[in-house]
Amino acid sequence: MDTEISSTVALTQDLIRRDSVTPEDKDCQLMIAGRLAQYGFKAEHLRFADVDNLWLRRGHAGSLFVFAGHTDVVPTGPLDKWQTPPFAAEIHDGMLYGRGAADMKGSIAAMITACERFVAQHPDHQGSIAFLLTSDEEGPAVNGTVKVIETLQQRGEHIDWCVVGEPTSSHQVADVVKNGRRGSLNGYLTVQGKQGHIAYPHLAANPVHLLAPALAELCSEVWDEGNADFPPTSFQVSNFNSGTGATNIIPGTVEMIFNFRFSTEVTDQQLRERVEAILHKHQLQFNIDWVLSGQPFRTATGKLLDAVKAAVLEVTGRKTELSTSGGTSDGRFIAPTGAQVIELGPLNATIHQINECVAIKDLDTLSDIYQQLLVELLVK
Amino acid sequence: MDTEISSTVALTQDLIRRDSVTPEDKDCQLMIAGRLAQYGFKAEHLRFADVDNLWLRRGHAGSLFVFAGHTDVVPTGPLDKWQTPPFAAEIHDGMLYGRGAADMKGSIAAMITACERFVAQHPDHQGSIAFLLTSDEEGPAVNGTVKVIETLQQRGEHIDWCVVGEPTSSHQVADVVKNGRRGSLNGYLTVQGKQGHIAYPHLAANPVHLLAPALAELCSEVWDEGNADFPPTSFQVSNFNSGTGATNIIPGTVEMIFNFRFSTEVTDQQLRERVEAILHKHQLQFNIDWVLSGQPFRTATGKLLDAVKAAVLEVTGRKTELSTSGGTSDGRFIAPTGAQVIELGPLNATIHQINECVAIKDLDTLSDIYQQLLVELLVK
Repeated sequence: MDTEISSTVALTQDLIRRDSVTPEDKDCQLMIAGRLAQYGFKAEHLRFADVDNLWLRRGHAGSLFVFAGHTDVVPTGPLDKWQTPPFAAEIHDGMLYGRGAADMKGSIAAMITACERFVAQHPDHQGSIAFLLTSDEEGPAVNGTVKVIETLQQRGEHIDWCVVGEPTSSHQVADVVKNGRRGSLNGYLTVQGKQGHIAYPHLAANPVHLLAPALAELCSEVWDEGNADFPPTSFQVSNFNSGTGATNIIPGTVEMIFNFRFSTEVTDQQLRERVEAILHKHQLQFNIDWVLSGQPFRTATGKLLDAVKAAVLEVTGRKTELSTSGGTSDGRFIAPTGAQVIELGPLNATIHQINECVAIKDLDTLSDIYQQLLVELLVK
Repeated sequence: MDTEISSTVALTQDLIRRDSVTPEDKDCQLMIAGRLAQYGFKAEHLRFADVDNLWLRRGHAGSLFVFAGHTDVVPTGPLDKWQTPPFAAEIHDGMLYGRGAADMKGSIAAMITACERFVAQHPDHQGSIAFLLTSDEEGPAVNGTVKVIETLQQRGEHIDWCVVGEPTSSHQVADVVKNGRRGSLNGYLTVQGKQGHIAYPHLAANPVHLLAPALAELCSEVWDEGNADFPPTSFQVSNFNSGTGATNIIPGTVEMIFNFRFSTEVTDQQLRERVEAILHKHQLQFNIDWVLSGQPFRTATGKLLDAVKAAVLEVTGRKTELSTSGGTSDGRFIAPTGAQVIELGPLNATIHQINECVAIKDLDTLSDIYQQLLVELLVK
């Protein structure tokens, strides 16, 4: 069986068999660096705290194109629910099963084999090619891509174009690419009331009651209408807790956590001010700790977007769809440097789930698209 | 020192020194039955599950007057915070300290000594006198007063007048009596949403958001205006919980517990219907489990109320104030039988607290009021 599979599929299997649950890398990056060394890629291992990062660059001249991704994977969940062991990387009926198959060891393998073929065919290509890999994309993302970007910026190394291998496809490979992501802002709200016995409400102040009209207003507020690239900004409460468990006590506080996924029509500062204005209008005593997970970004036009569209059309015969929906990715750390950033990877139907899998033919198609993308950008 | 204290205070000390935390009675009832046997009271010990109850009656003729109360006490809380051991019943500066001093072993002692003096002076009084004591008023209240009342009703034994010894006084003994109590109704609400990733709100349904406008309406609703005897009905949320703890997940359900303290202007059935109508109006998918803790009751007029007023005025020179505020009491089980029910006991400032205490002169005053009450009802 193994004699029939492609180099990309075999490499994906090798990567899956390294059980690199965040923040582990399990020498994925060392293996990749060794493999690409013969193609002229110079490795720089950047370890921050418990996170392995790899910056792997070929060439110094011209525009810099970067493949970005992560070697870490999310935990497996209950092993007994997997039909095949999650790190066995077995192939059944054309599907490769394993943790990381779709998110995103398949993409990394496709990027590597694409580079190998491209460099062999075009050893004197224009510009430079690099890989930015981290072992902490699925975790806190504190010592990963963001630190590598800081390092690059400090020495004036600028990225022009970046493709992140996140699984963006919906039904067929490359049917959707992400040309931006919404921002993400979390608020940790505490509303102060006054605890008391439920039979004496005049001696207490129920924070659930105090918050109720403000909450209704927050939930019905239109934060913006979105734009051509972004859906409207979304407000969602993720956690709401109040009460001691006793049925005869008026609680003293409400703890509420909420999240904004926001478009480029508002700034995180505007959202903070508007939320606090609503809470003040209802005369609440409150505290909010704000945590900005990422600014929104988009690559609305430019050479990278044109090249991606052309490569997808060339390889698959289909027009790709642009989207900015979905969760955050490490693109949020790269785009603010001024780089054009597109995310393009395999189907995302099974990511983070039991029996995560990817079609082996999709891996080969994806590798062809990545290769064609290099041709579009660095040869034509 | 002990030679100076009254029979009522000594008896209160005896009761406090029996550490009868719910549902324990620690032979309080046996001691009481023995003591009152010589005054013609016939004891009937009614034990249901782990709860001791005592029905102690003198006489069979005429109207039946009942002293009702409980021998159990709430837990002490941290022992090291008490200035004197909670079951030592020490007297300092005219105050008797101990768990149950005010709630309500002092009342029971005062009732007993009142009867002893009354019967000695009026052995041929009209009507009958009884005690209804339980060791489960502070607990679930399932095998206590409610079961004794059932027993009495099954054999056609009717209570005409009942004084419950709950600590009703505010600043001076007997300055306030309760001539009724609000009803108490708990609702256990579950609102159904659809869990999902916070980046894909269109695929989920946030139950906090769905509930928010209904909650605001429930909190602002005027349920009634109260009446001469009752404050307006009060709605209070005691517990509100939603969310998995994760900040990127839209919760699937809201669990909310709320309580009504309600007047005689509405019925519990009307409250249920009005809450459910509001929830339906907002098109919520929900479930509510309703638990009725007690119907409201009041003794607005009648011979008992007149006698209480007269006795307080006679003994203290003050007019007592009528109130229906505060928590529930076992009066809720007695009033529905058609009995006139008044609650009258010592100051409630320290009940259920560390260093619970009662003024020893208040115990003697209280005993005098109870005695005068018997005169008003059974002699005049």
